[in-house]
Amino acid sequence: MLKNPNYTNLKEQYLFKEITDRTAAYQAAHPDQTILRLGVGDVTRPLPPVIVQAMQQAAAELGQPDTFRGYGPEEGYEWLRRTVVEQDYAPLGVRLEADEVFIGDGAGSDLGNLSELFAQDNSVAIIDPTYPAYADTSVMAGREIMFLPCLAENGFVPELPKQKTDIIYLCNPNNPTGTVLTRSQLKLWVDYARANHSIIIYDAAYESFITQPDVPHSIYEIDGAQEVAIEVKSYSKSAGFTAVRCGYTVVPKATGLQAMWLRRQCTKYNGTSYIAQRAAMATYTPEGREGIRANLEVYRTTAHSLKSGLQDIGYEVYGGIDSPYIWCRAPHGWDSWTFFDHLLQQCQVICTPGVGFGASGEGYVRFSAFSKPDVCAEALQRLKQL
Amino acid sequence: MLKNPNYTNLKEQYLFKEITDRTAAYQAAHPDQTILRLGVGDVTRPLPPVIVQAMQQAAAELGQPDTFRGYGPEEGYEWLRRTVVEQDYAPLGVRLEADEVFIGDGAGSDLGNLSELFAQDNSVAIIDPTYPAYADTSVMAGREIMFLPCLAENGFVPELPKQKTDIIYLCNPNNPTGTVLTRSQLKLWVDYARANHSIIIYDAAYESFITQPDVPHSIYEIDGAQEVAIEVKSYSKSAGFTAVRCGYTVVPKATGLQAMWLRRQCTKYNGTSYIAQRAAMATYTPEGREGIRANLEVYRTTAHSLKSGLQDIGYEVYGGIDSPYIWCRAPHGWDSWTFFDHLLQQCQVICTPGVGFGASGEGYVRFSAFSKPDVCAEALQRLKQL
Repeated sequence: MLKNPNYTNLKEQYLFKEITDRTAAYQAAHPDQTILRLGVGDVTRPLPPVIVQAMQQAAAELGQPDTFRGYGPEEGYEWLRRTVVEQDYAPLGVRLEADEVFIGDGAGSDLGNLSELFAQDNSVAIIDPTYPAYADTSVMAGREIMFLPCLAENGFVPELPKQKTDIIYLCNPNNPTGTVLTRSQLKLWVDYARANHSIIIYDAAYESFITQPDVPHSIYEIDGAQEVAIEVKSYSKSAGFTAVRCGYTVVPKATGLQAMWLRRQCTKYNGTSYIAQRAAMATYTPEGREGIRANLEVYRTTAHSLKSGLQDIGYEVYGGIDSPYIWCRAPHGWDSWTFFDHLLQQCQVICTPGVGFGASGEGYVRFSAFSKPDVCAEALQRLKQL
Repeated sequence: MLKNPNYTNLKEQYLFKEITDRTAAYQAAHPDQTILRLGVGDVTRPLPPVIVQAMQQAAAELGQPDTFRGYGPEEGYEWLRRTVVEQDYAPLGVRLEADEVFIGDGAGSDLGNLSELFAQDNSVAIIDPTYPAYADTSVMAGREIMFLPCLAENGFVPELPKQKTDIIYLCNPNNPTGTVLTRSQLKLWVDYARANHSIIIYDAAYESFITQPDVPHSIYEIDGAQEVAIEVKSYSKSAGFTAVRCGYTVVPKATGLQAMWLRRQCTKYNGTSYIAQRAAMATYTPEGREGIRANLEVYRTTAHSLKSGLQDIGYEVYGGIDSPYIWCRAPHGWDSWTFFDHLLQQCQVICTPGVGFGASGEGYVRFSAFSKPDVCAEALQRLKQL
């Protein structure tokens, strides 16, 4: 047996371990100090009661002979796929069929596994900085990657590749910069993909944070996008499902890939937990929607306070409007880790070094509004006194 | 963008659709007749109360600020991994570390995804007939497959390949034949793999049905197997988790693949549902064990009745001792579908045509003891009167 040789080209993943190690070392040396964590990219607010009840009901069904069920469809239950079409897409003016929606266990799996649908020697373009799994997945598949810098200097809007690119990963709103592509900026990418027979893998995990009217909630709001785009969505960041595990991926038939993805899932996936699918259904109830809205409002308010607070102190900040993330340039031309260490040692505030999200993230850090409001407020107080 | 060309080499998956179509056509023509389904490969008995309660408690935790949790470790919670080591392996005399156990959403995903760890041009050996995903996954990866016939004529024991093979898929007890490799038969494969630097992907999904003392419960009972075998297990068939979705895969460090699989999972998987992991933990409680034992006893008793009933009628049958499946040779030299049609039309009993599991399954059908006991008893009555 020979191992997949591409794995040797992966860069060591040390970002979060390094953060943990440096934080632990500091805490050990200063046991009396309170560390404030503003690095976390994970939700923190509890699920609305109607979602908890839906899961409890689903669990109860599995305990009774008359309501027990086994395997569900690999692509997800039709009641959920139809609801996605009717509740998430129809209001945007996007028409999809239920069999173009595939329920999965979260965006992470699908973003990785979609890579299998393409020939090995396809080229890849990835915005930089962004969620590191796009690049890692492409390296594992042995593909050549072109990185598209997103910097303050270009308004965090990547330039179209000069040459033909086969696979393009876009994250909108982007993690970690919190910045967005507007409808007209995204249209350029759809047009490019149509002209070059490219496929866009569009990660819309943070869609529920969008507030500005010119930012699309789906790539399919752009004419022709159904021919060239796969959209990956998750209940993780919208409904707080990072422990529950549920999301969905839209593979329109017009891409020519719908039957392949169905086959992939029927071969290598046995369907999403019934309990998680029932939880997802509950997000569309009036109580579910209200509970989610209230949670998102807390994160948004925190993001706005954090961003304006950092701005008032004099930091150069981006994002935080259509995103829970604030992207902050390190002062004095420092690199990401220097700024990280400065904040840890001077005011015991933890952020995420931007360089961990790609070379173009160097010189920035990410603050997260998933952190609790009082923690953010206290962190701002400390930062002011620096 | 170019599609993965290997997908065009996949055979059409028509087995279960064809069964559904033929059954529906018959029922439409004979609306007053009751069809008895003995084809189902899915569990049917409800979960024990302690497992339902564990899921309800986990759901409740996610609804409270103090007990809410987000992402878990990609490889699964340590409390579950350690329990697997202590409760599933230590009693067999197998010593594993908790970080060699990876919790996943079921055997289907891992059996498919493990394929990524190997170089594309590795050769594959697959027993025939067996679970079709091993072959489909290998075709998707563009690998050359050698099929190893398992027939009554060789006691359903595959011959060792004459030439060097890189990747070997074994399913023990095997689906669909219900037959087993004993400890001494399996040792030949471990020795072969050690001599040829092969890796064995060992699917032990039906391990909980084993009753005979000379059949190993884990491949790691064989000396040296930790160097050459990955073992895939699931709570699906043991504890009835096909809707819950939880399983685990053991990748011993001695294989040299543990770090690669961890990296794969951290890149392309965001962890298993917290609720499913709590459900899995509850299977190890005294009440959980007793509930599972009672359910398995029903399936086993059904399997024994079904097998001896078929034997009494005069059919040539295999399996059904360490497995919920009975493998039955079609009479009169019929092929699988002829026998299927005969049973459907003459006594309205549905089985699964063996040829759907591989070329060497031709001329056999599979009966499943997951079917309800009264359905099996009624089916036997009808078969007797043929």
